[in-house]
Amino acid sequence: MKKAVMIGLGLIGGSFALELKKRLGYTIAGIDLNPAHIQKALDLGIIDESTDYDHLTDADLVLIAVPVNHIHKVLLQVLDKIGEQTLVMDAGSVKSHICEAVATHPHRQNFVAAHPMAGTEHSGPEAALYDLFDGKVMALCEVEKSNWRLLDRALSIVKALNMRVKMMQPADHDLHTAYVSHLSHVSSFMLGKTVLEIEKDEAQIFDLASTGFASTVRLAKSDAQMWCPIFLENKNNVLKALNEYIKNLEAFKILIETEQAEALTQNIHEANYIRKILK
Amino acid sequence: MKKAVMIGLGLIGGSFALELKKRLGYTIAGIDLNPAHIQKALDLGIIDESTDYDHLTDADLVLIAVPVNHIHKVLLQVLDKIGEQTLVMDAGSVKSHICEAVATHPHRQNFVAAHPMAGTEHSGPEAALYDLFDGKVMALCEVEKSNWRLLDRALSIVKALNMRVKMMQPADHDLHTAYVSHLSHVSSFMLGKTVLEIEKDEAQIFDLASTGFASTVRLAKSDAQMWCPIFLENKNNVLKALNEYIKNLEAFKILIETEQAEALTQNIHEANYIRKILK
Repeated sequence: MKKAVMIGLGLIGGSFALELKKRLGYTIAGIDLNPAHIQKALDLGIIDESTDYDHLTDADLVLIAVPVNHIHKVLLQVLDKIGEQTLVMDAGSVKSHICEAVATHPHRQNFVAAHPMAGTEHSGPEAALYDLFDGKVMALCEVEKSNWRLLDRALSIVKALNMRVKMMQPADHDLHTAYVSHLSHVSSFMLGKTVLEIEKDEAQIFDLASTGFASTVRLAKSDAQMWCPIFLENKNNVLKALNEYIKNLEAFKILIETEQAEALTQNIHEANYIRKILK
Repeated sequence: MKKAVMIGLGLIGGSFALELKKRLGYTIAGIDLNPAHIQKALDLGIIDESTDYDHLTDADLVLIAVPVNHIHKVLLQVLDKIGEQTLVMDAGSVKSHICEAVATHPHRQNFVAAHPMAGTEHSGPEAALYDLFDGKVMALCEVEKSNWRLLDRALSIVKALNMRVKMMQPADHDLHTAYVSHLSHVSSFMLGKTVLEIEKDEAQIFDLASTGFASTVRLAKSDAQMWCPIFLENKNNVLKALNEYIKNLEAFKILIETEQAEALTQNIHEANYIRKILK
């Protein structure tokens, strides 16, 4: 029977465990700093047993799904303790630091750097879901550094989860996710904060939210423990994206101030191009 | 048979017409500057006939659903030509200017200032939908200035559409919608623009969009002809909201720059409060 060790039993780790059991018949052993998460994951049938770092040698797969600022430490510890045939993957949203940290490790080739581009605004083992990854993208970084047979195992798992593979270099990955994912989260967190500051009367928000606010602010429900490290790990790219966003907002503000209807319309038309890309 | 005249046959006017026919048995006559819209609305069975401003005296209801910068002109023209028993409503997203424009009109009491807080990112008669208003809020402004029997007719219509009524003064309405609706749209338009500027490779956006970008940018598909006038009509409130949003983004940026994890976490926790309000 194939054995996976899941490190981090939150939304992503928990959902992965459910799928590995269901679709590929893995037995799952779990590790989490939080004992309540381990108990919850056992109760929910997400993992079969709890384990520790001294029992990794016979694992077919170790998947690391902890907040992104802890991944490199956990990963180095894991690579020190695995067997020759153990595949190690992570699920971090920022990849450059992680890939740099393991670059010279003697077990570097056991590692496949991965980012499952899926999620919800909920967290913890109780947020784990079947089919979370279905049809979503799995970004894999610098695959040329992984052992080809272990990479093949990783690809089989990704395929069994019905995900689409996208191979990227870490620097490209981190730049693109800063724009397409991380910026959306900053924008939504600050939209939530801004509206909450003015709308002391909460009923107002609820009543008036039908005109688009609910979808724009959805990501503001996301977990601080996950997102604060992402912004810091991907600092330079996030700052670049955020600076351009603020610059565009400032320019739009001036067009409203000076009542330049034609230029405002032009700006909106440019944004409307998104219709052609996202149906 | 009750007769309604629908002025403006886009998403809102068209959807209203469909509901008035289905739920209340109205006959619908349509007016639109765009002859193609009239033909389309006839073809789709949204209206029964086209009409003009010289045939309003026997209407039970005239509903004005044109872009918000045209409403006050159309409304004055309509109030000049209606019968004593005609109820006039509008569907504008900004209310102060409209209410001011008609304040001294001899038929002011025939008018109920309304804002159905519902919509999609699509436009035109072909975007008209059944059940668009179901469960949504209908804001009604300065109802004390409307004739009580005509107001009662308006309330019956709103009730038949299964909407929730929220009575507000125009200035309050415009301030709250600036934050809860208009700011969301600016934020989304500029997010779309920013990401499109960097992501020349469109496939990247599509592939990476699953982590929240799609919902945050949904409103960026909205119609310029509708939204440009809204931003300008509600200029002062939108600028106030936009200034506070940019201020919060700048502050968040500095926290990332200076790597203040604790303060970033605190900011995210403040935004997370939205979980308690919007389920």
